[in-house]
Amino acid sequence: MTAEITAAIERLLLEKQYYSLRALLSQMNEADIAAVFSEVTEDSLPLLFRLLPKDLAADTFALMDTDNQELLINGFSDNELKEVFDELYVDDAADIVEEMPANVVKRILKNTDPKMRHIINEILKYPEDSAGSLMTTDYISLRPDMTVTDAIKRIRRTISEAETVYTCYVTDDSRYLLGYLSVKNLLLAEPNDKICDIMEKTIICVHTLDDKEDVAKNMTKYDFVTMPVVDDERRLVGIVTFDDAIDVIQDEVTEDIERMAAISPIEESYFKTSDFNHARKRIMWLLILMLSAAITGLILTQYEEAFGAVTELVYFIPMLMSVGGNCGSQSSTMIIRGMSVDEIKLRDFFRVVFTEFRISLIISIILAAVNGVRIWLMQGDIKIAAVVSMSIIGIVILSQLIGCALPMAAKKCRLDPAVMAAPLITTIVDAASILIYFSIATHFYNL
Amino acid sequence: MTAEITAAIERLLLEKQYYSLRALLSQMNEADIAAVFSEVTEDSLPLLFRLLPKDLAADTFALMDTDNQELLINGFSDNELKEVFDELYVDDAADIVEEMPANVVKRILKNTDPKMRHIINEILKYPEDSAGSLMTTDYISLRPDMTVTDAIKRIRRTISEAETVYTCYVTDDSRYLLGYLSVKNLLLAEPNDKICDIMEKTIICVHTLDDKEDVAKNMTKYDFVTMPVVDDERRLVGIVTFDDAIDVIQDEVTEDIERMAAISPIEESYFKTSDFNHARKRIMWLLILMLSAAITGLILTQYEEAFGAVTELVYFIPMLMSVGGNCGSQSSTMIIRGMSVDEIKLRDFFRVVFTEFRISLIISIILAAVNGVRIWLMQGDIKIAAVVSMSIIGIVILSQLIGCALPMAAKKCRLDPAVMAAPLITTIVDAASILIYFSIATHFYNL
Repeated sequence: MTAEITAAIERLLLEKQYYSLRALLSQMNEADIAAVFSEVTEDSLPLLFRLLPKDLAADTFALMDTDNQELLINGFSDNELKEVFDELYVDDAADIVEEMPANVVKRILKNTDPKMRHIINEILKYPEDSAGSLMTTDYISLRPDMTVTDAIKRIRRTISEAETVYTCYVTDDSRYLLGYLSVKNLLLAEPNDKICDIMEKTIICVHTLDDKEDVAKNMTKYDFVTMPVVDDERRLVGIVTFDDAIDVIQDEVTEDIERMAAISPIEESYFKTSDFNHARKRIMWLLILMLSAAITGLILTQYEEAFGAVTELVYFIPMLMSVGGNCGSQSSTMIIRGMSVDEIKLRDFFRVVFTEFRISLIISIILAAVNGVRIWLMQGDIKIAAVVSMSIIGIVILSQLIGCALPMAAKKCRLDPAVMAAPLITTIVDAASILIYFSIATHFYNL
Repeated sequence: MTAEITAAIERLLLEKQYYSLRALLSQMNEADIAAVFSEVTEDSLPLLFRLLPKDLAADTFALMDTDNQELLINGFSDNELKEVFDELYVDDAADIVEEMPANVVKRILKNTDPKMRHIINEILKYPEDSAGSLMTTDYISLRPDMTVTDAIKRIRRTISEAETVYTCYVTDDSRYLLGYLSVKNLLLAEPNDKICDIMEKTIICVHTLDDKEDVAKNMTKYDFVTMPVVDDERRLVGIVTFDDAIDVIQDEVTEDIERMAAISPIEESYFKTSDFNHARKRIMWLLILMLSAAITGLILTQYEEAFGAVTELVYFIPMLMSVGGNCGSQSSTMIIRGMSVDEIKLRDFFRVVFTEFRISLIISIILAAVNGVRIWLMQGDIKIAAVVSMSIIGIVILSQLIGCALPMAAKKCRLDPAVMAAPLITTIVDAASILIYFSIATHFYNL
């Protein structure tokens, strides 16, 4: 759909139909406009942007990618820059400032009003992954002794600045957080009700320095549209809104998935990352895994006599390594995901190990039987069929135990469990598989 | 934290301090109470539940796991059952009914009021993964000719039933969706403003039969707290709320991650799934992969003479298979995740292939150099070092190309790209690696 709209817009642009263009753009949602803007040529971007009505321009600007934002800022007059930034929500403004090169930041801060500049600076002081860096200071605060009528008056006065009015927070004069009130309950209340009588006093909040992933998890757990952020004295300093929480969840999932594939997390999108950066993010683990895999090769050298005597033994190496690796990565994946959605906790360690053990018994017997019959039928050699099948049973059980135990051990050591995913598990399991296989084989063949 | 509260609650329960218990529970958030309830013994659950104030009881009930819900329902009198269900939001009620066995469903429907029963039946008619099955019918609808004062009166009258008042939807008499209005804009407007003059007319909505994953994606894209759901005639039939959208996103991610580890998606949580079910979800792919890996073994039989003559060649098999598998799974993971967050589209196919090709050149040269030097230094055999290094170059390039092309090909064929992840890629790449390695080796050693 975006492709068609982009084509229509480019055609109007070519025909200089600016009036129709403006009408078309004004009817679109900012997210769709940002998507179109990421497709058009760099030359036409500033012109298109200037066609947008003022508040739609700021909303769209906040959703554009960093490169295009920088391009536009560089083309802006100081006045235009000020206009766009004054319309932005402070958390979006802070996000943009964080991504820009130093000279652009300087120009932005010079051209925003002092209050906004102060808030941006405050937000930028918080550590990158903290609740403080994620929050906005555009929230509505009420006093406990206000009546509902006072509160609605105050909301009407401050609302245009606030990103959200889903929940109002109640604080005392020193900003100490006392409670909160949903707009729903405000609308339901009688005009003379006191805020302190109708507010919700069970406060769930996060600290400015809390990890943003925990903030997002808590918001999901409590189904909160906004989460209050407090300082050491439980003074309200900002709120995190659900749209930022969803972005955090998506980013964390991407990071987990990349880590599970032995890729160091990449900050930019796929196409924005340079080839060298892509290579850099992948090479470290590849080197570690390659050198670790050489150990499996070393183990093989110990059994040179064995496969010198019975060459057939070599043929089953890839299959056994593959079975072990797959079983191990299935187990580790289940456990890593289970831990990241809090279904599995550290104290469940033995329960998990026993569960995986029982599952591995079922799986190993089926795989051993299918494979034993296959080898026996295809090669008519019951001895090698027995050796391979017995190896499969040992390898599957061991792989699943390693696969479930290592991610939990990593978490216990405060490492990211996702590091103990398929690639590392496979490498460890490979070596173990070769050992099990040749121990059984040398025993059976008296080698 | 939950563990400590659970302990405190169990102590109070033992001491029969019901008054304190009730006071303690009343102050807690429903999500925390549900977490505690999943920890306590089955015997104490009905008693604890009856200590909750009525509306907190319903909110908590909606968040409990299916087993505990069933346990409670079976213990409820018809009257209690009616009380709890009448307090539930209809989408939660429909979710619960969907999970219950037939006899329990019968009892629930018998004891809910006719209007709720009708709505539950309507929601249950929609396909499982559709927007219709996810929506709630508890929304606030306004008419275009109302004034702001009328609208606020109507909201106050219908609000207690509505799950959310973040956005009100404007419809005509036949429920045709005309626009929407955020509470923020409603509060900002003048009392005599007409709704049709202040409402937002750019309507973004989903159809009852749209896939719920697309609904969640759209809500994330537009930062919507609620998304209107319409039928074929664009009549408003319900709304999807952001909490359900986040659950959909989390479930889809879990499904993707499981599929990427060759596990068929599991509906229940880890501990709720029986051993046989766990095994069943893993065994199919293990069998397919095991039998495919046997092909790699067959390829090896073709080179019996080669490693009969140069036994050393065997030692490097595990390492080369590992390098190929890891490179392939890195590429496929990047592409699968990129496609699922819409960063990479099908039309980017050649761009992706060229990018991966360039990355693979950088990576293969580094890996080949490190490994060549290591083998040369450790074994003093420059010939085998050269063979292994050249193989690494070929294997890395081929693996990354296979790793990026197959997930995109799967998507083109309307399959889930996640199926083309590490396990299958590794198996395919293993066979290719062995072929490349022995072709180079036989050539170099004139075997």
